[in-house]
Amino acid sequence: MWIKKFLIGRPIPTDREKYERLSKVMGLAVFSSDALSSVAYGTEEILLALLLAGTSLLSFTMPIAICIAILISIVSISYFQTIHAYPSGGGSYIVAKENLGIYPGLIAGASLMIDYVLTVAVSVTAGIAALTSAFPLLFEHKVALGVAAIVLIMIANLRGIRDAGKIFTFPTYLFMGCVVLMIFVGLLKGGGSSPQTTHATQNATLSFVSLFIILRAFASGCATLTGIEAMSNGVRAFKPPESRNAGITLIWLAILLGVMFMGISFLASRYGIIPTSNETVLSKIARITFAGGPLYYLTQITTTIVLIIAANTSFADFPRLASNMANDRFLPRQLRSLGDRLVYSNGIIILGTIASALIISFGGYTHALIPLYAVGVFLSFTLSQAGMVRHWWRLRGDRWARSMIINALGALTTAVVLIVITVTKFKSGAWIVLLAIPSVVYVSKKIHEHYLSTGDQLAVNGAVLEPDFTHHSVIIPVSGMQKAVLGAIQYAKVLSNDVTAIYVASDPQKTAFIKKEWEKYGRGVKLYVLESPYRSILDPIIKYIDDTREKHPDGVVTVILPEFVPSKWWHYLLHNQTALLLKGYLLFKKGVVSTSVPLKLKE
Amino acid sequence: MWIKKFLIGRPIPTDREKYERLSKVMGLAVFSSDALSSVAYGTEEILLALLLAGTSLLSFTMPIAICIAILISIVSISYFQTIHAYPSGGGSYIVAKENLGIYPGLIAGASLMIDYVLTVAVSVTAGIAALTSAFPLLFEHKVALGVAAIVLIMIANLRGIRDAGKIFTFPTYLFMGCVVLMIFVGLLKGGGSSPQTTHATQNATLSFVSLFIILRAFASGCATLTGIEAMSNGVRAFKPPESRNAGITLIWLAILLGVMFMGISFLASRYGIIPTSNETVLSKIARITFAGGPLYYLTQITTTIVLIIAANTSFADFPRLASNMANDRFLPRQLRSLGDRLVYSNGIIILGTIASALIISFGGYTHALIPLYAVGVFLSFTLSQAGMVRHWWRLRGDRWARSMIINALGALTTAVVLIVITVTKFKSGAWIVLLAIPSVVYVSKKIHEHYLSTGDQLAVNGAVLEPDFTHHSVIIPVSGMQKAVLGAIQYAKVLSNDVTAIYVASDPQKTAFIKKEWEKYGRGVKLYVLESPYRSILDPIIKYIDDTREKHPDGVVTVILPEFVPSKWWHYLLHNQTALLLKGYLLFKKGVVSTSVPLKLKE
Repeated sequence: MWIKKFLIGRPIPTDREKYERLSKVMGLAVFSSDALSSVAYGTEEILLALLLAGTSLLSFTMPIAICIAILISIVSISYFQTIHAYPSGGGSYIVAKENLGIYPGLIAGASLMIDYVLTVAVSVTAGIAALTSAFPLLFEHKVALGVAAIVLIMIANLRGIRDAGKIFTFPTYLFMGCVVLMIFVGLLKGGGSSPQTTHATQNATLSFVSLFIILRAFASGCATLTGIEAMSNGVRAFKPPESRNAGITLIWLAILLGVMFMGISFLASRYGIIPTSNETVLSKIARITFAGGPLYYLTQITTTIVLIIAANTSFADFPRLASNMANDRFLPRQLRSLGDRLVYSNGIIILGTIASALIISFGGYTHALIPLYAVGVFLSFTLSQAGMVRHWWRLRGDRWARSMIINALGALTTAVVLIVITVTKFKSGAWIVLLAIPSVVYVSKKIHEHYLSTGDQLAVNGAVLEPDFTHHSVIIPVSGMQKAVLGAIQYAKVLSNDVTAIYVASDPQKTAFIKKEWEKYGRGVKLYVLESPYRSILDPIIKYIDDTREKHPDGVVTVILPEFVPSKWWHYLLHNQTALLLKGYLLFKKGVVSTSVPLKLKE
Repeated sequence: MWIKKFLIGRPIPTDREKYERLSKVMGLAVFSSDALSSVAYGTEEILLALLLAGTSLLSFTMPIAICIAILISIVSISYFQTIHAYPSGGGSYIVAKENLGIYPGLIAGASLMIDYVLTVAVSVTAGIAALTSAFPLLFEHKVALGVAAIVLIMIANLRGIRDAGKIFTFPTYLFMGCVVLMIFVGLLKGGGSSPQTTHATQNATLSFVSLFIILRAFASGCATLTGIEAMSNGVRAFKPPESRNAGITLIWLAILLGVMFMGISFLASRYGIIPTSNETVLSKIARITFAGGPLYYLTQITTTIVLIIAANTSFADFPRLASNMANDRFLPRQLRSLGDRLVYSNGIIILGTIASALIISFGGYTHALIPLYAVGVFLSFTLSQAGMVRHWWRLRGDRWARSMIINALGALTTAVVLIVITVTKFKSGAWIVLLAIPSVVYVSKKIHEHYLSTGDQLAVNGAVLEPDFTHHSVIIPVSGMQKAVLGAIQYAKVLSNDVTAIYVASDPQKTAFIKKEWEKYGRGVKLYVLESPYRSILDPIIKYIDDTREKHPDGVVTVILPEFVPSKWWHYLLHNQTALLLKGYLLFKKGVVSTSVPLKLKE
């Protein structure tokens, strides 16, 4: 318990919830790290995809980067509108569900949940890769480092939102500063003419295969967009006025993301960087720009930190989404409520556990997961924008047409991108996500049905009160005269006047002995001896209980089980579990209640 | 349930136990397969050990075989005496414990248990090896075949002793017939002069290294003796007069074993057989003798069957030994009693499970285990004979001196063999057994101490009866008005007049609602609303229970938990386990009893 207090902090009372809100500066740090940090691998993914055709297509890096920057602005403007339309938090799940129906909502929710898990695994792994680029000695410990990072983020989040923000503000801004400085220095330096410009002119005619490769490179680069939707899920975490603050923060984020991504891609093109497995592209650019000096190491370290805390965006949003879905009874109710420190503790723990398992089972090499999560992101983008189109159409308020057109443009663009990603990335893993999403939707639907059916079955509406019981019989099955039996008899006598003990005979000597003991300690309770030709202990007891039930059809029977509780768990293995079997059986018997009167053993 | 009935058969009443006994002919089949089947690998083990020095020492095969045959007769005569001295079943465990004390008894018991497990794994694997010698196609399925064989033997044994005997009689006798016929034909055929005779004369001077190798070959061959003690454990399984029948059967067994082992070793020497990994020595001899005809295949198949059912000896004896040790409270009491079909079902299942795990984890290649189990066998032999020496000395009945000398000779011989095996086989695995035996002894001792201490703590001797309770308070914690609560109230009213329900408030609206519902369905039971500033549900409930306890120090409190039982196990994951936590907490609270009134859900 004191460990919990030390790591997580003291419980926080319910009425302090509104003080735990974020300013814009802190909100940017908490909700942007996922989106911003993806610049660390976005450009690299584009280069890797283009290199499948040799160096001939590398000149397409900048055009692709520009397309992605345009995509960023379209998606951001769309989400800006969502934040204002849904001030209480409008994640894709809520928007899709309210405007398009249950199934689109569930699909959006499932996509997002899968993405959050992947984001944690991928960001942490990429962060460790940035670290091992600068310090190759650490390479062999990458799994342990990854899991340790996740545990750290989990603890930070279990302490509560505001504390989490505090921890993450400084390194996030330091990272932004490093990257912006790097781009600035890189642009000033000038450097030799880009080697790719020559290639571009050589390949004036594009074959179908090259087109496919370019589209796939674009799809790979779209991983940069993951995390933009985070802000819209977390509007309620901002200080009031929540929507205004969240909206402004989102615009800041979009501008920063666009500038950083374009700058890095431009420098990669100008320097003619070719990705290799032992060093990240960002590390190569920074090494060249800062000439391997202290600023290079600062860039690498802040990249690592920001990538690791990028996972934090998912830790802020996954539990919130899970809580929303649990409130709608699509997920287990344990995910619904706030813990001691006003955070959704169960969701945080589940996310951390699954992501750690992914990192361990992939041996710290989750590069293969990067293409996977673009599918889920763009599926939820599309559903969310489409939901907004429907939203404006239904309300038709002030300037609804303009808003609807903006969201329609967003929906259309992201839908096209979704199709491009699905087609070009199908074999590299998109199919896994296309299987996983329906599975999650199916399970959510089953959970929903169970809760509805349980609610119906437990409802008291129109229930007719059954009459009071007219009789109470108490039965104590005993296996010998022990201290546990003494306690059971004492308790039984306070319950009813009709108490009987029963004993299943095994051999005549033992039976005679227990009869004698009973006279001494039985307190006047009658002892029945039952015969058992097949050595079963349960059958005669159950038959006796049934007979007692039949004698008083309007009464109730209590079966008191004298038990002892061993002091160590493994001691349970050394004792017959007859009482447990009997309890399990009586659970389903109408008119019979079983009670244990436990005697605690000391050793 | 019907699967169990089909596979295992109907329950058998206790008083039929004496009809389930074995005749001598059937007893030989049941208790001899382990000992007899070891001729299938005994000679091979000797040859393999001698070959470490090249072919030069192969001429020692027959001398070693003769030594082992003498050992067989000494051990058999010793056990013949044990059977008559312990007509109710005198395994090494009982004999060592009664005559030498607890620890020697436990050491003997532990050695035997480990051996039984090894016997099952080794016999089954060797059986599959005999099969794959004749049918090489099956080689790759050896693990699956091994596990399937164990499952088959388990089912046969769970059906009961007499049925098991029936199944095994025919193939055991067919195997004996085949091997005896093979030896007879081999002797008649004559064949070329033994190639080894020449070698022997060349090596007139024995180096220390050769002596060590010869001793180790002897130690390896001692694996042939495993299983001889089986008869003495199972005296009670024979028809009356039990001792006489078991003793005669043991003599038959010893003669058959000696003849078969000597014959096979002789033919191996005469044919100049060199063991190879793809075919067993017995298969080579049979192939030469029967010229690869149908009799060869019959020999191989019966060898397989008899080796597989050799494991059956362990299935007859392991549960019996475990039951003896459990009766003495050295093993969990679940191993003590007879199941539905008058067999020790739990012991059978445990043995089958561990042996299957061994085969799977060794990939069906348990050749390395063969040397291991000679240690345990000879340790228990020695302890048992030494115990018998003590037995005769204590009783000093008719012709006690002669009996004592016979057993002393046995004890001395087996002790010397034990030392030889331990020294020569220490590195090849004997050390494992020398570690495992003390571990089992330690655990047994711990179990024993737990049972004694539990017995003391539960004993009523001298207990002073506590006075009747003067008051009975009933508390029903509720989380809302549901059907499960209706049942709890109805039951509570039959228990006491002092019934109160408690509700932990979360929001004022819900509290108002439940208060209104309570007026309709509460049956006059008072509802208390408890506040919880830190959102904990358990803390206020526990505080209320404590307060109630203090109000009536001489009374008792019953906490009734209204619960529902979901229809599917995974539904439990979807509901808060607050009731379970509360129950766990109350288990250790004096003067408080908790009772569940369960409502069974239908879907």
